[in-house]
Amino acid sequence: MKQRPIPILAPPGEDLARRVWIEHIQPAVDDGRYPIKRTPGEDVTVSADVFADGHDVLAVMLRYRPTRTNEWLETPMRFLGNDHWRASFPITSLEPYCYSVIGWVDFFATWQEEIRKKAAAGQKVESELLEGAAMVEKAADRASSLDRSQLVDRASILADRHQPAAARLETGLAPDLQALMNRYPDREGATEHPSLAVDVEPLHARFSAWYELFPRSARSYPGRSGTFGDAEGLLPYVARMGFDILYLPPIHPIGRTHRKGQNDTVVAGPDDPGSPWAIGAEEGGHDSIHQDLGTLEDFRHFVETAHTHGLMVALDIAFQCSPDHPWVREHPEWFRHRPDGTIKYAENPPKKYQDVYPLDFECRDWQNLWQVLAEIVLFWMDQGVTVFRVDNPHTKPLRFWGWLIGQIRESRPDVIFLAEAFTRPAVMYALAKAGFNQSYTYFTWRNTGQEITQYLSELTRSEVREFFRPNFFVNTPDILPEYLQFGGRPAFIARLVLAATLSSSYGVYSGFELCEAEALPGTEEYRDSEKFQLRQRDWKRPGNLTDYISRVNRIRRENPALSHNFHLRFYPVDNEQILCYGKTTPDNSNIILVAVNLDPHHAHEGWLQFPVGEFGLGESEAYQVHDLLGAGRYLWQGPRNYLRLDPSSSPAQIFLVRRRVRTERDFDYFM
Amino acid sequence: MKQRPIPILAPPGEDLARRVWIEHIQPAVDDGRYPIKRTPGEDVTVSADVFADGHDVLAVMLRYRPTRTNEWLETPMRFLGNDHWRASFPITSLEPYCYSVIGWVDFFATWQEEIRKKAAAGQKVESELLEGAAMVEKAADRASSLDRSQLVDRASILADRHQPAAARLETGLAPDLQALMNRYPDREGATEHPSLAVDVEPLHARFSAWYELFPRSARSYPGRSGTFGDAEGLLPYVARMGFDILYLPPIHPIGRTHRKGQNDTVVAGPDDPGSPWAIGAEEGGHDSIHQDLGTLEDFRHFVETAHTHGLMVALDIAFQCSPDHPWVREHPEWFRHRPDGTIKYAENPPKKYQDVYPLDFECRDWQNLWQVLAEIVLFWMDQGVTVFRVDNPHTKPLRFWGWLIGQIRESRPDVIFLAEAFTRPAVMYALAKAGFNQSYTYFTWRNTGQEITQYLSELTRSEVREFFRPNFFVNTPDILPEYLQFGGRPAFIARLVLAATLSSSYGVYSGFELCEAEALPGTEEYRDSEKFQLRQRDWKRPGNLTDYISRVNRIRRENPALSHNFHLRFYPVDNEQILCYGKTTPDNSNIILVAVNLDPHHAHEGWLQFPVGEFGLGESEAYQVHDLLGAGRYLWQGPRNYLRLDPSSSPAQIFLVRRRVRTERDFDYFM
Repeated sequence: MKQRPIPILAPPGEDLARRVWIEHIQPAVDDGRYPIKRTPGEDVTVSADVFADGHDVLAVMLRYRPTRTNEWLETPMRFLGNDHWRASFPITSLEPYCYSVIGWVDFFATWQEEIRKKAAAGQKVESELLEGAAMVEKAADRASSLDRSQLVDRASILADRHQPAAARLETGLAPDLQALMNRYPDREGATEHPSLAVDVEPLHARFSAWYELFPRSARSYPGRSGTFGDAEGLLPYVARMGFDILYLPPIHPIGRTHRKGQNDTVVAGPDDPGSPWAIGAEEGGHDSIHQDLGTLEDFRHFVETAHTHGLMVALDIAFQCSPDHPWVREHPEWFRHRPDGTIKYAENPPKKYQDVYPLDFECRDWQNLWQVLAEIVLFWMDQGVTVFRVDNPHTKPLRFWGWLIGQIRESRPDVIFLAEAFTRPAVMYALAKAGFNQSYTYFTWRNTGQEITQYLSELTRSEVREFFRPNFFVNTPDILPEYLQFGGRPAFIARLVLAATLSSSYGVYSGFELCEAEALPGTEEYRDSEKFQLRQRDWKRPGNLTDYISRVNRIRRENPALSHNFHLRFYPVDNEQILCYGKTTPDNSNIILVAVNLDPHHAHEGWLQFPVGEFGLGESEAYQVHDLLGAGRYLWQGPRNYLRLDPSSSPAQIFLVRRRVRTERDFDYFM
Repeated sequence: MKQRPIPILAPPGEDLARRVWIEHIQPAVDDGRYPIKRTPGEDVTVSADVFADGHDVLAVMLRYRPTRTNEWLETPMRFLGNDHWRASFPITSLEPYCYSVIGWVDFFATWQEEIRKKAAAGQKVESELLEGAAMVEKAADRASSLDRSQLVDRASILADRHQPAAARLETGLAPDLQALMNRYPDREGATEHPSLAVDVEPLHARFSAWYELFPRSARSYPGRSGTFGDAEGLLPYVARMGFDILYLPPIHPIGRTHRKGQNDTVVAGPDDPGSPWAIGAEEGGHDSIHQDLGTLEDFRHFVETAHTHGLMVALDIAFQCSPDHPWVREHPEWFRHRPDGTIKYAENPPKKYQDVYPLDFECRDWQNLWQVLAEIVLFWMDQGVTVFRVDNPHTKPLRFWGWLIGQIRESRPDVIFLAEAFTRPAVMYALAKAGFNQSYTYFTWRNTGQEITQYLSELTRSEVREFFRPNFFVNTPDILPEYLQFGGRPAFIARLVLAATLSSSYGVYSGFELCEAEALPGTEEYRDSEKFQLRQRDWKRPGNLTDYISRVNRIRRENPALSHNFHLRFYPVDNEQILCYGKTTPDNSNIILVAVNLDPHHAHEGWLQFPVGEFGLGESEAYQVHDLLGAGRYLWQGPRNYLRLDPSSSPAQIFLVRRRVRTERDFDYFM
């Protein structure tokens, strides 16, 4: 056997004296590398495994504070068995918070447990009482003057051999002595977990209903672009439907070079307005307003008027340029060039997008470019905009967004960003970790019960829920889902109810409420898409869903269960075409049950298994379910209940579950 | 709306230029806070999510090295789709390793993909070829002189307008140009993950069969203690059974004060030898040898003789003292005192252990105490001991073990420590993370098929397997499991086979092979336990399992599948009393299938579902299974096969699965 040297030991350092270990603190995103997200009014429920060697009793506290303050607030964590501890703290203001867990050996509680056990076994505890007295005396040294005298009193009783043993024991075990001792713990050797961050966002980051509108289509007669003034005329319409964020595609001058024509044709006609995402013309770029829409003043007026209707205006941030954008001339170094000196347009071979030049985020001058892009956002914030929808963020560096959003939200946590990303899950989630407050999702492509259940479980039951806030758009100018193309009005209703109740944030692109369903064949593109032409709409078209949408949005506002995603649960129905799920408030004071017929063509019926026990209802207890959409009221009993959904009349039902049912006991003369 | 200030932006720092993100690197224990564990000869398979914005092609490398060297070795990671990458590296020496992942945008590969797509779509690539030429030229600047001229050649072909386009395209896409370019990548802006650690342990940390023996019982006639000389006489017996580690309970002088008598009685008789764990007497403490066993020289002779029999000797580390230990006199400050000045003995109310004083790891002089304890270990290492079994480590500070084991293994990675901890899972696992190389487990209390399946899934399929090496002892001086008390010889066989094949490390305390099963009623304590008295045994007692154990240990050595736990899988049998599972080598060259009848009283039969497809066997292909215990050979076909296990003849079977079956094609004249 090879001889190896006997090691020379380094002496144990002071840091080794801490006996407590803290592990698996939850919630934490990527082990604390990224903040969790909350809104004011929410609680953060923190759990951790906390333990030490041996059998000593531990004291474990949850610590938390707004990050800017320097003093921790503390609340004791509750021991749940098997080294598991839990506690909650409230988020009360719109600013970053942080939290941590601290634990130490509670020698006094350990002592109490010891004397309790020994006394129960009939053993003498004389020596132990003296040890306890010494501990109480030491705590007295740390105490305020009022408490000090109390502690000194107790110590002297514990140490007094002339008192009866039973009385001394009782003093040692008294809850009020424990409470007193807890006020002056000996925290030497305490272990503290590195602190974790909470990104606190405004309520509408969590709970919002979006409506997307092209202001240039706001005019009701053909041939001329609508203006902000025209769009103001639509504000009551949007507000009546109950939306709270009105999102506008880019409002900037549109390039003329390689402008796309109607239905995405390569050559535009003389009257074709071009895609709003081909940003920039001789008149200006990202900080200018398209002259057909109005002036900057008109825009500000529009934003203010929207506010009076309870609507926030969201702008589109699309960091790309048309060939006519002023930056192309002033900052050619911000773009990629071909060997012949020309600028590279966007491509996804074999597709070419000659009307769009991507910015080169890696160019030599990248730091100035990033700065200027950030200043564009600040410019629109200056006009009162606090919500931004970011176009294709996944084609720009993740660290750019981290920097931009971080810089802005540090002093303006009221500003939020929605990521319009449709890409692989890791990148979707990385954008959310980088700071995006909401994100588009795969919802439009999740149609069967299994698809929806699986996707929502990922979004609401895994770590994802701590940092990724989904926004379920039912359609967009780019996506007219096949389900809507072929399912008719019942399909629109089903998808609306799914989006608005599965996700606390959802969105509708205008035309949806009119059940517009005509696509370019074989695609998800709208025929005669607004992206490339002006559209007029009959907002009162028969069969429209405006009243239905108003009702759904009112139900959302009146039922706090629908403003949150953490408490979503799916319930089994013995017919897979009926999807049934519930949402509740944490205290179960508001219980919503949703049933959707996923088949827009046929009526379906089935038996639902509703876990009444989880809501404190007995197996044979009656309860009321009130269909908030159809206004019907039903008496149910126990877990098994019948559902029937006919797409021609009610493709979906949203039930409010009321646990209390009137009985003879409510009758005045009973008793 | 409250007015808030428009933020002032900090300029983007250089560190933001890295476009690649690396996430979810696996394996990693607690996100890299603790090392994973491997032995020389094993591979580490590393996976990670690596991605960037946009659609550029990435280059991702796994980096690894023995930690003491400064130069990374690299191997390319394979792209598995959906941002997932994987690669392996080998552990070739007994020393700490580290590993990491580095990724960057591969502009040349991106360019190749672009021209391939464009050419396929019939688009011109003249400008792209010039871009490619520029990239190749730049790489030439980074290249060795030989490669440089090659690269310059290729660049000039790519740039040469007089050459036919097809030839230039072919040059650009040629695999050998790609290989050349890969040799000189542009790694500017690469992202590297913080490095992760591998604790490399000797093979027997992973794969070992232990035998526990009280040397004082080694003498075959009553009334006098056995010596190391007597114990040497048993070495051939232990070696013949095929064990490789011989573990001795403490061999130090035993205290006389409050010595425990036979069967744990409070008062010892004059001839009672006392518990070896009550360490220390006038003659000496932890660095002394009990005079009845022999001298230090005898011990060294014993260790050397054991080596010649292929046995390593493991010593017991029990850091506690009898009241007569020299430290009690010399270092009273290392113990806890009562108010009356006496030293506190160990207690777990209402139980009292007056023969044992725990050390106070938190005493004022703790740093010196820790140092002295570490020196005890070094002392025994000096005598040739490299394996330690640590008694009750969970009642000493976790950070003490982290320091002690870390200090020793830094220069002596051949030394290993087994934790004798039976406590809550979090603490068991924390000891393993702190550095223990093996651990006792809950195996003795996992008896039903479901219990075993569940426990082994936790140990071998979760993150636990990366840091926690189970040692399945079938019995210990403290644990005579009820299953053995009442199941007779078939129960001993079943538990032996389970321990030896479920876990790559297992152990037997002497007497097990003789089917000793007499307990103190209602307990798991042996009657007339060796802990408190001398024992004589008839090692040839009829019905003994020594031959059976030899066979099991030979099967373990001859079948590498059994030397590892990662590839354990349970297979369904339609009779829950038959537990069936398989272990394989990673390349499936060795396939072991084990079937155990868990009911020691009745024969059971059932149909096994064996997933032949996973082993490259067709559904209707015949294969041979060879019972290595019973020597029977069976021809099986397809997944469904019949098993019958009669406890009176064969409570267990260990099959070697041979995929190759002879057919007419093996006959010389065939063809």
